[in-house]
Amino acid sequence: MILDSGNKSDDENRIERLSAIIKEKSFDSLIVLKDENIFYLTGFHGKDSGSLLLVTSGKLYLLVNFIYLEQAKRSVYPGKVNIVEYGKNKYIKLLEILEGYGPARVGIETKSINASDYLSLKDLLKKRSKKLKETDGIIEGMRVIKDKTEITNIRKACKITDGVFSGMIESGFDFFKGESEISLALKMEKRLIEEGAEGRSFDMIIANNEGSSMPHYISSRNNIKNGLLLMDFGCKYNNYISDITRTIFLKKFKNLDKFKKIYDIVLQAQKLALENCKEGVAGKDLDNIARRFINKKGFEENYRHGLGHGVGLEVHEDPIASKGQDNVLKENMVITIEPGIYIEGSGGIRIEDMVLIKKNCCEVLYSSLKDLIIL
Amino acid sequence: MILDSGNKSDDENRIERLSAIIKEKSFDSLIVLKDENIFYLTGFHGKDSGSLLLVTSGKLYLLVNFIYLEQAKRSVYPGKVNIVEYGKNKYIKLLEILEGYGPARVGIETKSINASDYLSLKDLLKKRSKKLKETDGIIEGMRVIKDKTEITNIRKACKITDGVFSGMIESGFDFFKGESEISLALKMEKRLIEEGAEGRSFDMIIANNEGSSMPHYISSRNNIKNGLLLMDFGCKYNNYISDITRTIFLKKFKNLDKFKKIYDIVLQAQKLALENCKEGVAGKDLDNIARRFINKKGFEENYRHGLGHGVGLEVHEDPIASKGQDNVLKENMVITIEPGIYIEGSGGIRIEDMVLIKKNCCEVLYSSLKDLIIL
Repeated sequence: MILDSGNKSDDENRIERLSAIIKEKSFDSLIVLKDENIFYLTGFHGKDSGSLLLVTSGKLYLLVNFIYLEQAKRSVYPGKVNIVEYGKNKYIKLLEILEGYGPARVGIETKSINASDYLSLKDLLKKRSKKLKETDGIIEGMRVIKDKTEITNIRKACKITDGVFSGMIESGFDFFKGESEISLALKMEKRLIEEGAEGRSFDMIIANNEGSSMPHYISSRNNIKNGLLLMDFGCKYNNYISDITRTIFLKKFKNLDKFKKIYDIVLQAQKLALENCKEGVAGKDLDNIARRFINKKGFEENYRHGLGHGVGLEVHEDPIASKGQDNVLKENMVITIEPGIYIEGSGGIRIEDMVLIKKNCCEVLYSSLKDLIIL
Repeated sequence: MILDSGNKSDDENRIERLSAIIKEKSFDSLIVLKDENIFYLTGFHGKDSGSLLLVTSGKLYLLVNFIYLEQAKRSVYPGKVNIVEYGKNKYIKLLEILEGYGPARVGIETKSINASDYLSLKDLLKKRSKKLKETDGIIEGMRVIKDKTEITNIRKACKITDGVFSGMIESGFDFFKGESEISLALKMEKRLIEEGAEGRSFDMIIANNEGSSMPHYISSRNNIKNGLLLMDFGCKYNNYISDITRTIFLKKFKNLDKFKKIYDIVLQAQKLALENCKEGVAGKDLDNIARRFINKKGFEENYRHGLGHGVGLEVHEDPIASKGQDNVLKENMVITIEPGIYIEGSGGIRIEDMVLIKKNCCEVLYSSLKDLIIL
């Protein structure tokens, strides 16, 4: 699919901001390897394509394998990106381009390169009197605050997801009847695509009963039975991601009353976090607001993951709202708020929204019901 | 889903072979980080779970985040693997375990760790008089030759894929009518799951007409029109992967005669490679057999990717059958044979099978039709 080239001024703005950071760090160039970071700067998203972006003196060189050449030509922001086909080795091609720029301090994001490539690139550069400078999180740091184009895409991804969930609930028990966890996931993805999404944003966690006690459960081909049904899913729109979790009850089941109480605690904890979520609040403090509430109810041991995480081009990105993380929420960040309580061998409840941080509040990006649904 | 724990003697065999290699390299321990390698040795497949496996003195320590603890307990080969929950940092936990083993030479596969983690781990170990030794491809090297359990799983994945493709063709044009590229992909995945697969093995390339000229095209939401339809897809069974490509013609279209000829050339090239594919042949020579044929027909510029690649737990793994690669095919390797001809802006034909290498021939793992199909 031809990607939306987005709002031109946003793209230009990104490159200008990056150039300023590169200058501030006294680098001459920056090597970008993470697919999402390359997309953010160029409009080209070659998932696992092994592409490399060199940013130097305000110029962008996108090095792609010939397999991605046509796709790159079709998707980059026009006129800004020099597309270069690399032959056997992208690092050799990179050196050829860098030759034109004299001695250099070349920044590299060490979390996006494997140690093998890093060690050989370092060596190659050294032989040419160029120095590899380790850095991290420059572009991820930029991506933390979403610009207009991004917010539009995220809103759309959330709206599609929202609509699909509401439609499922309106269809009632019939929608779930006879489905296995994985066939339900596929049925949901079909709806997401019909409503305009490019597809699922990650392998959905469709977890029935005891499966739902594992926060990162892998859906099975077992038929869905009466009881708990946790659905953690989302879609992609212009490469931007939505992420939502709803836990519903199917008919009556053994621990219904127990899980009703748990549902209510999780929901109250989530509401508390939402009420306190705004610019200026530290992520760990927000986590603590929901956690204290759950702990007080006696479920300290049953809620061990963090409260939330940033979402954008990646399902999990900065900022992380969790104990031990140092960050403060700012306007136009997008995060999830997703407390949960998990009883091993029995089941779990998680309720997750995505929110856009505002100056004095946050905007929940879904309107899907959160009151307990029993179908 | 609870993973099949496989054939016990195969598992044991793997660990014994690995222990011998570690000894041969004079390492005391090996750190394993790639999800597929961890699965191969332990039975636990935590995709992107950030798990770490330490192999030392014949013992296996699987370090997992608490989120994956229950899943790990349920899926590892019983009695063999010590599951350890790591707290904040898996490398700190690793050091604690290594403390018990005196000074050590610790091997690490540098292609499976990012440079940031590598640099900090190296530093941490140094402070404790332990040395990080760079290595690569140890476990990938073992995985190149498939054992009985693996071949059974791969056969099953291929059989499911085969059956689904045949069923689609039997349904005729109706199966494709009114579908977009992505909705067709989903329809196919649904069938794969119904036939026993865990899901698709990668994002399917469903490419209609000009889209098919891009070998790694991203499927669009455009409705499928008469003309070329290239389908590169597969499924997973017990984490093992199938990979197949068929290109069919839908009704009549503008360049029908031209692409009929091209289809025939690709098919002949593929058959030539299959006839010559057996133990003892170099991957690059096999590539050359198909390539020479295509070049002679005047399509040198239109077939630029390699002939094939290994398949197993990963879609692309060793051995690569391509120019410039040094490897020789051996019994029980599994590779793809997939020549193609691509006309930019117009369309492409690719035909791909997976084969099991035998002493004097190869066994094609699909029986799906390869003669030109016009629906």
